[in-house]
Amino acid sequence: MADVNLNVGGTIFQTTTQTLTKFPDTKLGSLKKNFSMDNSPTTFFFDRNPDVFNSILDLYRTGELHFPSYFCGATIRNELKFWQIDKTYVSECCLESLYRYDDEMGILSEIKSLQEKKVLDIPEDECREGCPRDFLWRLLQYPETSRKASVFSVVYLFMVLLSTSVLFISTDPDLRQPIGSTENATSSNDKTLMYTHTSVPTSIWIIDISCGIFFTLEFFIRVMVTPQRWRHFFCCPLNVVDVIVITAFWMFNCMVHVGPVFLHRKTFSFLVMILASARLLQLCRFYRFMCRFSSFDVINLAARASVGKFGILIALFTLSNLFFGYLIYYVEFDQRDSFNNAFVGFWWAVVTMTTVGYGDIVPTFFLGRVVAMLCALTGILILAMPIAIVTSNFTLYYAKLKQYTMHRKESKQKENCKKKEKKKKKNLCKTVSPISVLSVKPIR
Amino acid sequence: MADVNLNVGGTIFQTTTQTLTKFPDTKLGSLKKNFSMDNSPTTFFFDRNPDVFNSILDLYRTGELHFPSYFCGATIRNELKFWQIDKTYVSECCLESLYRYDDEMGILSEIKSLQEKKVLDIPEDECREGCPRDFLWRLLQYPETSRKASVFSVVYLFMVLLSTSVLFISTDPDLRQPIGSTENATSSNDKTLMYTHTSVPTSIWIIDISCGIFFTLEFFIRVMVTPQRWRHFFCCPLNVVDVIVITAFWMFNCMVHVGPVFLHRKTFSFLVMILASARLLQLCRFYRFMCRFSSFDVINLAARASVGKFGILIALFTLSNLFFGYLIYYVEFDQRDSFNNAFVGFWWAVVTMTTVGYGDIVPTFFLGRVVAMLCALTGILILAMPIAIVTSNFTLYYAKLKQYTMHRKESKQKENCKKKEKKKKKNLCKTVSPISVLSVKPIR
Amino acid sequence: MADVNLNVGGTIFQTTTQTLTKFPDTKLGSLKKNFSMDNSPTTFFFDRNPDVFNSILDLYRTGELHFPSYFCGATIRNELKFWQIDKTYVSECCLESLYRYDDEMGILSEIKSLQEKKVLDIPEDECREGCPRDFLWRLLQYPETSRKASVFSVVYLFMVLLSTSVLFISTDPDLRQPIGSTENATSSNDKTLMYTHTSVPTSIWIIDISCGIFFTLEFFIRVMVTPQRWRHFFCCPLNVVDVIVITAFWMFNCMVHVGPVFLHRKTFSFLVMILASARLLQLCRFYRFMCRFSSFDVINLAARASVGKFGILIALFTLSNLFFGYLIYYVEFDQRDSFNNAFVGFWWAVVTMTTVGYGDIVPTFFLGRVVAMLCALTGILILAMPIAIVTSNFTLYYAKLKQYTMHRKESKQKENCKKKEKKKKKNLCKTVSPISVLSVKPIR
Amino acid sequence: MADVNLNVGGTIFQTTTQTLTKFPDTKLGSLKKNFSMDNSPTTFFFDRNPDVFNSILDLYRTGELHFPSYFCGATIRNELKFWQIDKTYVSECCLESLYRYDDEMGILSEIKSLQEKKVLDIPEDECREGCPRDFLWRLLQYPETSRKASVFSVVYLFMVLLSTSVLFISTDPDLRQPIGSTENATSSNDKTLMYTHTSVPTSIWIIDISCGIFFTLEFFIRVMVTPQRWRHFFCCPLNVVDVIVITAFWMFNCMVHVGPVFLHRKTFSFLVMILASARLLQLCRFYRFMCRFSSFDVINLAARASVGKFGILIALFTLSNLFFGYLIYYVEFDQRDSFNNAFVGFWWAVVTMTTVGYGDIVPTFFLGRVVAMLCALTGILILAMPIAIVTSNFTLYYAKLKQYTMHRKESKQKENCKKKEKKKKKNLCKTVSPISVLSVKPIR
Repeated sequence: MADVNLNVGGTIFQTTTQTLTKFPDTKLGSLKKNFSMDNSPTTFFFDRNPDVFNSILDLYRTGELHFPSYFCGATIRNELKFWQIDKTYVSECCLESLYRYDDEMGILSEIKSLQEKKVLDIPEDECREGCPRDFLWRLLQYPETSRKASVFSVVYLFMVLLSTSVLFISTDPDLRQPIGSTENATSSNDKTLMYTHTSVPTSIWIIDISCGIFFTLEFFIRVMVTPQRWRHFFCCPLNVVDVIVITAFWMFNCMVHVGPVFLHRKTFSFLVMILASARLLQLCRFYRFMCRFSSFDVINLAARASVGKFGILIALFTLSNLFFGYLIYYVEFDQRDSFNNAFVGFWWAVVTMTTVGYGDIVPTFFLGRVVAMLCALTGILILAMPIAIVTSNFTLYYAKLKQYTMHRKESKQKENCKKKEKKKKKNLCKTVSPISVLSVKPIR
Repeated sequence: MADVNLNVGGTIFQTTTQTLTKFPDTKLGSLKKNFSMDNSPTTFFFDRNPDVFNSILDLYRTGELHFPSYFCGATIRNELKFWQIDKTYVSECCLESLYRYDDEMGILSEIKSLQEKKVLDIPEDECREGCPRDFLWRLLQYPETSRKASVFSVVYLFMVLLSTSVLFISTDPDLRQPIGSTENATSSNDKTLMYTHTSVPTSIWIIDISCGIFFTLEFFIRVMVTPQRWRHFFCCPLNVVDVIVITAFWMFNCMVHVGPVFLHRKTFSFLVMILASARLLQLCRFYRFMCRFSSFDVINLAARASVGKFGILIALFTLSNLFFGYLIYYVEFDQRDSFNNAFVGFWWAVVTMTTVGYGDIVPTFFLGRVVAMLCALTGILILAMPIAIVTSNFTLYYAKLKQYTMHRKESKQKENCKKKEKKKKKNLCKTVSPISVLSVKPIR
Repeated sequence: MADVNLNVGGTIFQTTTQTLTKFPDTKLGSLKKNFSMDNSPTTFFFDRNPDVFNSILDLYRTGELHFPSYFCGATIRNELKFWQIDKTYVSECCLESLYRYDDEMGILSEIKSLQEKKVLDIPEDECREGCPRDFLWRLLQYPETSRKASVFSVVYLFMVLLSTSVLFISTDPDLRQPIGSTENATSSNDKTLMYTHTSVPTSIWIIDISCGIFFTLEFFIRVMVTPQRWRHFFCCPLNVVDVIVITAFWMFNCMVHVGPVFLHRKTFSFLVMILASARLLQLCRFYRFMCRFSSFDVINLAARASVGKFGILIALFTLSNLFFGYLIYYVEFDQRDSFNNAFVGFWWAVVTMTTVGYGDIVPTFFLGRVVAMLCALTGILILAMPIAIVTSNFTLYYAKLKQYTMHRKESKQKENCKKKEKKKKKNLCKTVSPISVLSVKPIR
Repeated sequence: MADVNLNVGGTIFQTTTQTLTKFPDTKLGSLKKNFSMDNSPTTFFFDRNPDVFNSILDLYRTGELHFPSYFCGATIRNELKFWQIDKTYVSECCLESLYRYDDEMGILSEIKSLQEKKVLDIPEDECREGCPRDFLWRLLQYPETSRKASVFSVVYLFMVLLSTSVLFISTDPDLRQPIGSTENATSSNDKTLMYTHTSVPTSIWIIDISCGIFFTLEFFIRVMVTPQRWRHFFCCPLNVVDVIVITAFWMFNCMVHVGPVFLHRKTFSFLVMILASARLLQLCRFYRFMCRFSSFDVINLAARASVGKFGILIALFTLSNLFFGYLIYYVEFDQRDSFNNAFVGFWWAVVTMTTVGYGDIVPTFFLGRVVAMLCALTGILILAMPIAIVTSNFTLYYAKLKQYTMHRKESKQKENCKKKEKKKKKNLCKTVSPISVLSVKPIR
């Protein structure tokens, strides 16, 4: 009955010619012309994995191509290629292992490209190793390369913390001192008057200026020694922010000391406020610092990967907010002073759906409360989805980064070991099996 | 000892006749009549997968039918059918792989049917490709087919956003202008008076009317060119909503300008409020727009799949609310002005269990606070379950849709390639294996 | 070299005698006495699964016992038993598949026992099928058995909803009417006066009494026809609750109409309040109704399975509350009127940790706010754990129940089919394979 | 064509010499020197698992090393070692099974080390079993070893609960009694006056002192009988806390009764407050008690394992708080009395991002509300990540602890059984297979 023998890597598979001729376009189907005319079984040898071949042969036997879930997507693809079977033959129930592989490879390549982007060396022809430019660049960019660089890194972090503290402290009206003569700067609560009539104490002002000088110097040195063209350098958002922050900082300090003389009070107040709020961007320096940690990369990548899926969920969330916000406005129509317009309803809907629930606006009418209940439950369920996405992306990227880091570490150790071996002409790195090697002599 | 040889696809399995006769109803059991009388082993050949046969034979050996977890449900079913073994023999611990397959196929078929429903073409006999009706239908329905259609799609979205903005802006009492003579429309906070005494500014009114005309036209064109029978067309909820919204829009505009003359103030106010709130339904146009994105399908399907499981959880949530609401009413019995009746208790329970916590009603008595703690914890735990359901459904449907989309894309590419091949009579698409094909010559 | 051949179910394994004698206590080790003295290889035949044997033999080769993760725990146990290898040999990294099986079997047996408990039939010797007692019992207990029973089930649910509505409505002071002469029942907000000076309107009172009669009758009929001994019947918590609710209901109605005459006002008020709050237990009737749905079983089982793990988490949550509650009391020591004693601090800590955040008590001092931030973050992280437990238990039980239900359904269909087959003497149910059965003739 | 036969544990693999010589550094590559010169196939025997060898041989065939996902990491490592193939050859898509093994072993070793740390016995040479010191140590440390110890454990828990209750009750101003003459201790709300002018009632004071004596005695006995050196004993944080709590307790009680005579009122008040808040640390006694439960170990380990990953997330959370806090300060610049300085903004941002939402400070301006919405959504998404980490760690550690506990239990049973067996010279524990052992006689 079985008139074809297939020897796949040593394992014999037997089947019939009818079976094999079902798919004539494939490799096994095209064997037909080699079949012997008499009924004696023909044997073909393929130097291939016999495990996967079981699934391949099942396509001919049952007409369906299923794969056990344990095969890696790359193995399936390799075998399909070899046996000249199209990917579209794979059954719908077995697509997962095939396409999950693409996802995982995508994640790995993202991780790799992010880690390569971080490495930005001065080309050897511009500057030898150890020249001042190279030294400064390593000092600023690679805290892990030398002791001095890591000390600088700590100093940088300290200055960032200091300038942020100053930023926050300078907004406290109780600490500020009235400018010039003790005018009628009575109501310290009136924030618009604060910047025109009071200034920070001298001690804090000195710290602030010191921080400013430090960051300005750091920035100019970075501009000088960067191996990137300036065109590329100023395309990087973090560098653009640095320019803005440094400009805003010096303009703000000039303004505060010189401004009141030249400018009208109102213009002055407005300009000061704009410049002060621009200094908020200096928080990006924390971001620059955090980029050095690989677990921050995970957050970054997970966030980026989630953005695509978020679009529609944010649209749905906004739509629900619009719906409930407009609904509550009409439902609480008879209540004075609580839902004055539909925008207030929208604000209330967001506060309710995120379960923040400030309680500044609360429905008091029976129907309004029913709407509120539905709104809260809808919000919990809609927000569960983006949370699920972020969570699963985070877990996935974290696991992959960990595996990749461990693998690269071992590869590097191996390379270093080989280099040393070459130098010493000794055989140090070979993984010698502690298990006794049995009988490798040929049996004749 | 072993007196039966089973050659399953080339692999030899040996067992005894006693073993095989344990289940006489099955295919292997029914081989009995073919056994040779002398003790020489008989060999049977089956053109089947030897991997799965191990598990099948274990049923005869140990009396239990276990499957390794890597087999796809379809494979197990095929083999059980072939070997004439009933599904009820499968051990309880191995049911998962068998029935998970049903789930996954169910999900896939849902995805398919949803995607097929979206495709609604004008039959070729009614209208040739390119005729005005076909052009209009494609313009309205398929933004991805032509450049004009995608431009129209953007215009449509813009009009939806515009009309929604107008809807919200028109509720702001500060922007509205008093009608006719500056009567005593003093208290702009009194929302019931707002619609009778004030109107939106002319500029906004013009925008509103323009939007109304656009959507009315769009709807009538859609009705004209739809390939569906009108009976079916008006069964679709989205179209019904469109009818309501357009009717409400025009009635509202007539009413506001003509109403005050003919109608009593109270009737007028009531009618205006009803019509204005009916315009809320125009948010469904966003929904129509979002339906075009496949990730919205996932949300849709996940929500639908969850509804069945939700019923009992919503019942449990409501029951807990009733319980805690009634309990807090009696526990805080001595407190005046806080829990006036059990409905207030119910409202408080919902606000607490969803962790919204407005703070409009708060227990102040010791026992009341204990009840509140239990209420909050119960709520967190009960709501964790529907969130888990939505989350897992969303993840599942998302993964399946992604795989299915990738698979269909590849199938289409293959088809297109084959079509071209036919035209050019060339062999372009064959997946040629880059690995050198070893020794396909027959070994005799 | 290889001097032992092991024929396991047709597959040949070759190894050496040294390898096998490593573990002399096991079945393979005890083969030693059967080894041939000369060096010619001996062959042993075992009628066993060759797949699992690979892992078994690896124990002898490498000294470690690892199992591929796809084997079901039952398979591993069977093979270990057969080869006389102790479970303690299994490597620590491969324990999961071994013990997960226990978990899953535990879940399945819980599901089974719960479903068996629900079936409570009148023994046939006490009452023939169709007698009034059996009819009444089925009417009350099994809504799915007859049309009348399902109608009764709907009526029951309606009455439960009605009586719950009455319960809630009767607490609303606006709907209640003053008793007797229109005394000084002025302040309807004073809830303690409400029950002594006002009563529900007559219409609602009639509905309430009707519901009461319905449930009393239903309960007495259930007591009469139950197949359980009364000793067992009154051990079931739901039945005890029924007794309490019915007693409380009638006592409450007597009290309200007769009480004011005989009792002192204060005693009366206290008794009425106790009885009214006892009526809260009637919500358990919803619970009885929900027990009929299998998805409620899942919630039930998941909740029970989680309780064991909860103990320590609730302890940890309480400990954190005590900690933060006491801490905030001292941190906000200088603030008057906000944290009067440590109990208030505890209440605040619970409200913050569950993220309910009513805002009735809020820290205003700098350090107090730092404590509040830590408190909120700690709460979010601690509560994430029980949520994770409930969620995973729920998902697990749900999947198992679904699989079990589908399996039982198929088993029943098979049984029914067989019964019919016997009657008709025809062969209807056999799963006939549509795939052509190849070559079952013996090859000699 | 196939000129090399590899007999791996009985299974024959056939391949070509070209294939094998691709990687000459490995074991199979080094077989070259043993190849026969004529074309007759050579056979090599390896006493190894044929299942894994398929993947190994695929490296030679396709140049890529993939492993099916079901192999345990230990198996892969063993085989790679034996075949002298470096780990760096493993394909990037198959790293998971290789490195997940490390993770799982890490978790297991953490669990083991924690459980070993708990066992702290008095060495046998210092004290025989049953001597008073051993008895006392077991009483204090191992509640499960004797009945007396478990009774003591309950008493200890009761005393902890009692002293905590006293701690909380003593802060309630309503229960405290004025000291000495009924001075002008009018405002009980003023907490700073409370400790100087009032004291706890005598009954509570007696309970407090009793608890204090109990814990002081318990601590001194523990110090006396501990098998640890005192140097190590006082390094354990829990013991240090005990010293602080006991000192604070007695100083507090002295102070309250003696202090007012010697000390100035302000100094006295300050000292009392410090000492009273130090007593908060007595909550650690709960912690000591909870450490006895293995499920608390899981929480402990999961928390420790999460801390590493938390760092960057807490940094990100703080950064977002700083950002939104500073932003809302400027956005709500025109609002008086709501965001007085940027610190208030920071506090508001934390309250919003954790969705606590007290409502003490709420943005009222349009832009401020937009910032609030973004802030709430950002918070929900950022906090989803640490929750995901804690949750998955908790689940992982829980599963591992459970498996490990079950495995150790079975190992112990086995050991006990063997010990008994030795004594009785009987064969009790052998796992006798109930399945009839077929044909172990050699086939010649």
